[in-house]
Amino acid sequence: MRSLGFIGLGRMGTPMARRLLQAGHRLTVHNRTRSKAEALVAEGAQWADSPRAVAQASEVVFMMLADSQASEAVLTGPEGVLAGAREGLIVVDMSTIAPAVSRRLAEQAARQGVTMLDAPVSGSVGPATEGTLTIFVGGPREAFEAVRDLLGILGRDIHYVGENGMGCAVKLAVNLILGISIQALGEAFALGARAGIPPARLWEILSDLAVISPSLRNKGGKIVQGDFAPSFALRLMEKDLGLIVEFGRQVGASTPLAAVAQQTFLAAREHGWAEADYSAIAAWLLDQRPPNAG
Amino acid sequence: MRSLGFIGLGRMGTPMARRLLQAGHRLTVHNRTRSKAEALVAEGAQWADSPRAVAQASEVVFMMLADSQASEAVLTGPEGVLAGAREGLIVVDMSTIAPAVSRRLAEQAARQGVTMLDAPVSGSVGPATEGTLTIFVGGPREAFEAVRDLLGILGRDIHYVGENGMGCAVKLAVNLILGISIQALGEAFALGARAGIPPARLWEILSDLAVISPSLRNKGGKIVQGDFAPSFALRLMEKDLGLIVEFGRQVGASTPLAAVAQQTFLAAREHGWAEADYSAIAAWLLDQRPPNAG
Amino acid sequence: MRSLGFIGLGRMGTPMARRLLQAGHRLTVHNRTRSKAEALVAEGAQWADSPRAVAQASEVVFMMLADSQASEAVLTGPEGVLAGAREGLIVVDMSTIAPAVSRRLAEQAARQGVTMLDAPVSGSVGPATEGTLTIFVGGPREAFEAVRDLLGILGRDIHYVGENGMGCAVKLAVNLILGISIQALGEAFALGARAGIPPARLWEILSDLAVISPSLRNKGGKIVQGDFAPSFALRLMEKDLGLIVEFGRQVGASTPLAAVAQQTFLAAREHGWAEADYSAIAAWLLDQRPPNAG
Amino acid sequence: MRSLGFIGLGRMGTPMARRLLQAGHRLTVHNRTRSKAEALVAEGAQWADSPRAVAQASEVVFMMLADSQASEAVLTGPEGVLAGAREGLIVVDMSTIAPAVSRRLAEQAARQGVTMLDAPVSGSVGPATEGTLTIFVGGPREAFEAVRDLLGILGRDIHYVGENGMGCAVKLAVNLILGISIQALGEAFALGARAGIPPARLWEILSDLAVISPSLRNKGGKIVQGDFAPSFALRLMEKDLGLIVEFGRQVGASTPLAAVAQQTFLAAREHGWAEADYSAIAAWLLDQRPPNAG
Repeated sequence: MRSLGFIGLGRMGTPMARRLLQAGHRLTVHNRTRSKAEALVAEGAQWADSPRAVAQASEVVFMMLADSQASEAVLTGPEGVLAGAREGLIVVDMSTIAPAVSRRLAEQAARQGVTMLDAPVSGSVGPATEGTLTIFVGGPREAFEAVRDLLGILGRDIHYVGENGMGCAVKLAVNLILGISIQALGEAFALGARAGIPPARLWEILSDLAVISPSLRNKGGKIVQGDFAPSFALRLMEKDLGLIVEFGRQVGASTPLAAVAQQTFLAAREHGWAEADYSAIAAWLLDQRPPNAG
Repeated sequence: MRSLGFIGLGRMGTPMARRLLQAGHRLTVHNRTRSKAEALVAEGAQWADSPRAVAQASEVVFMMLADSQASEAVLTGPEGVLAGAREGLIVVDMSTIAPAVSRRLAEQAARQGVTMLDAPVSGSVGPATEGTLTIFVGGPREAFEAVRDLLGILGRDIHYVGENGMGCAVKLAVNLILGISIQALGEAFALGARAGIPPARLWEILSDLAVISPSLRNKGGKIVQGDFAPSFALRLMEKDLGLIVEFGRQVGASTPLAAVAQQTFLAAREHGWAEADYSAIAAWLLDQRPPNAG
Repeated sequence: MRSLGFIGLGRMGTPMARRLLQAGHRLTVHNRTRSKAEALVAEGAQWADSPRAVAQASEVVFMMLADSQASEAVLTGPEGVLAGAREGLIVVDMSTIAPAVSRRLAEQAARQGVTMLDAPVSGSVGPATEGTLTIFVGGPREAFEAVRDLLGILGRDIHYVGENGMGCAVKLAVNLILGISIQALGEAFALGARAGIPPARLWEILSDLAVISPSLRNKGGKIVQGDFAPSFALRLMEKDLGLIVEFGRQVGASTPLAAVAQQTFLAAREHGWAEADYSAIAAWLLDQRPPNAG
Repeated sequence: MRSLGFIGLGRMGTPMARRLLQAGHRLTVHNRTRSKAEALVAEGAQWADSPRAVAQASEVVFMMLADSQASEAVLTGPEGVLAGAREGLIVVDMSTIAPAVSRRLAEQAARQGVTMLDAPVSGSVGPATEGTLTIFVGGPREAFEAVRDLLGILGRDIHYVGENGMGCAVKLAVNLILGISIQALGEAFALGARAGIPPARLWEILSDLAVISPSLRNKGGKIVQGDFAPSFALRLMEKDLGLIVEFGRQVGASTPLAAVAQQTFLAAREHGWAEADYSAIAAWLLDQRPPNAG
């Protein structure tokens, strides 16, 4: 049994934290909105009033937050993790953030004797609940070895990919394919629909073809039914595409499709689809109208 | 046993024609370059000096040509299929051409009592050889029923999708996803490589993920090895992306990713990758250099 | 005094035909919709019932039509110009059409002893009325010399640019810059507006800067006022961008901005802006809504 | 006579600082590389070893730096401007940086009683030398009034555009048009060249047209001659396009052309054109090869 902390109890964080708790570890949790922690506390987790307090109570702190700004604030703020960290603490940031920010935060943590790992995940609420996420880990290898068992509670395929920031880099490469693929499917539906083949009929034909990935297969039927209940919000995919383009700028990689997909997702985000599932990009492409616009 | 014709004996056409021959039908063949027909003739096919002569000898003529211009020339030229067609002939054009051209040719044929079907295929040389292509058929349903058994020799999944041109429309929707997906993979490789993860390592991580379609899985390892022996030439994918964008214009469907992918494939085509496999777009994205540019 | 013909009496064609008439030439006119010819007939032009009849009455026939299809139909149809042409006729096609079509039509005409020039124009209704168009001419130089005086009635800057199709090629290069520039201005307005600077204020600042071309200066104030009365319809700019991308494909030139602008204009076209001035792309970019959508 | 500071003595900063000195003000200067300050020191400026020391000696400090990171470091670093600032200091940051960073730095400065203005400029070395820059100013109006006379030494058209960050926002809107326009010209040259019209000939035709802005007119002839001596480096335009796309994300403005132009400039930057003038994008588009690649 180890003393663990978990900060960020959203759609992904909550089932992940629950798995750590159910595995028998002592778990201290914090979330910006306290109410989201209630279920976990009822199940045995400790509430802490700040990231700082989480750090004081933990050997390993997990973070699952929305973006680079959130990771930075939770880590380095006056009531942040580093303010409460003893030397030797390991912080596993599972958020999808900019690789450059991840690296910078790791350097800042290291100056206080805190070791960071970036460990963003691929997979959505289902795999988070079942512990079958894919996890991409960057940071010092010894720290990775020290938390490998814990990561094994959360995910099935766990890839150590290099120094700090590289976990985020690989995650962005994955989401680049994911975001572009779903828009490609949306463009195919739009093309078909305007040509006279309704999406439902086109999907019957497409769904078994080799061009359709398991991710797309999972989404196509829902798109056809107009079911955009979010497992991964469109605004978050837009955010990731923004990170991809910016990261491409930094390392010198051309990503023209990512750049254009980011523009499409941005337009959809601004027209009412922000909180819908990212697959709603297909609905936006079909007629470039807000949800429920008749 | 029926009297069949086959025009266009390229990488795809030859194994397709062979399957028809091996199924026991009488087969008359023609190709712009005669030498490509020799093997089939040795196996029992009849050579004809022109599309016109093929039509004179056949109840059903199959065409598998490079582009809209070729289909039009072979069909309507002075020595073309229509010049030799008796009433009742069925022409099955399996080329991937512009839906509008397909429809126009069908109208022209109909004025002579010839029925056309557009029946482009998904799948490459392997499935063409094994008779496991996917086929999208547009045109009069009775004509489709009349040749269904023949199509069954060539493909496994055979989708009747509507009036003339709709087979081509569906095929374009499929290749839209195929072309964009492969570029997405190429962008992911480029991003990773510049960030310090070699393609081979990234592919180990990516290849099992749900974002990877069977089509991509088939290509990723070859990309990593630099094996771009063509099963579907890059210039043909560029051509299809051009058809997609133009078709989108006609029917009013926005296809921004297809438009940008077409530009990328065009640049690759112009820099020496035209005859390589379309997956060579990944090599182009990696450093925007011609093949063997050191 | 020469016997001239003019086919295509739209927004541009009518003032151009009028200038030829007023210069003292005998003028025979035809238009798909006869009513548009009435004013000119009242001023002294002869009406002809077909392009064929125009050709029979003329030494030089001018055409000012909407697109490649129209030029082809008017020239080669059963009641077309070539059907009525005597040897030695010069046809000056001032329409903006695909260079490849222009070249093909010229070859077809030449087989009948008819010489074609492609002579598309830059400039809108104002310059058409004042005879200050810029004209780009492709085709045999002797034919150009033979009609130079007539072109001088219509335009001020007259550029002979090479063989058939090259006039259209240069025109497309010009409209590439025009279409992209106006979208750039629209994107600047959108960026400013979302950041809190209303277009009217931004335009006060921008309008005198060196980045603003005379074409943009002419449009900016109207955009700010929401005045999109068409001098050049948005759907025609979309058409030209489509021609540009297709022409780029043929000659092997990458035009990524043109490809993306075409997508934007297409979306605007499909959402109610087709007949507005092309500068309405700025209104579309501002909030991606149809005209009068509140 | 006022005590002024100037930090950042690059291609733009040096002539700007010189104008302030020649106008009779006491000037303290600092630059990362000291040698670049020597000429100004010889002309009467004082050298200071750090931004902090500049601030200690000045009522108003001007900054002209490369990017957001540089502005932040020079302002907030341990030897930065704020470390040496007395209350009431006005800092005029003329760098082109992210509006969000500009706003954040202004807030941080305000907490120390220092007032910031963002005042990026339009115009290159020539106007900087002649004092004819266009200046876009964001920040508290009183501070603007207090330095208006000084800005008048540097620029001719001085636009007060609103709160902190808005100067940068307007500057980005201007460079959006500038960057996209030059790529449009490059695409036109590429299209023409592949179609058989050499850039020099095409430029003869284009240069007088209404689609050509003064900025383009200034560049076209140099592009034709292959003269890419930098007045504004291509890598800086790439940077600005990156800022534009990121700013668009933040405020919710779609800027598809800017996104694609950024990708093109990025590719050119990575292939040897980083330090060339930004108009070298035309050379890149022509054949997508590094400089001097034969």
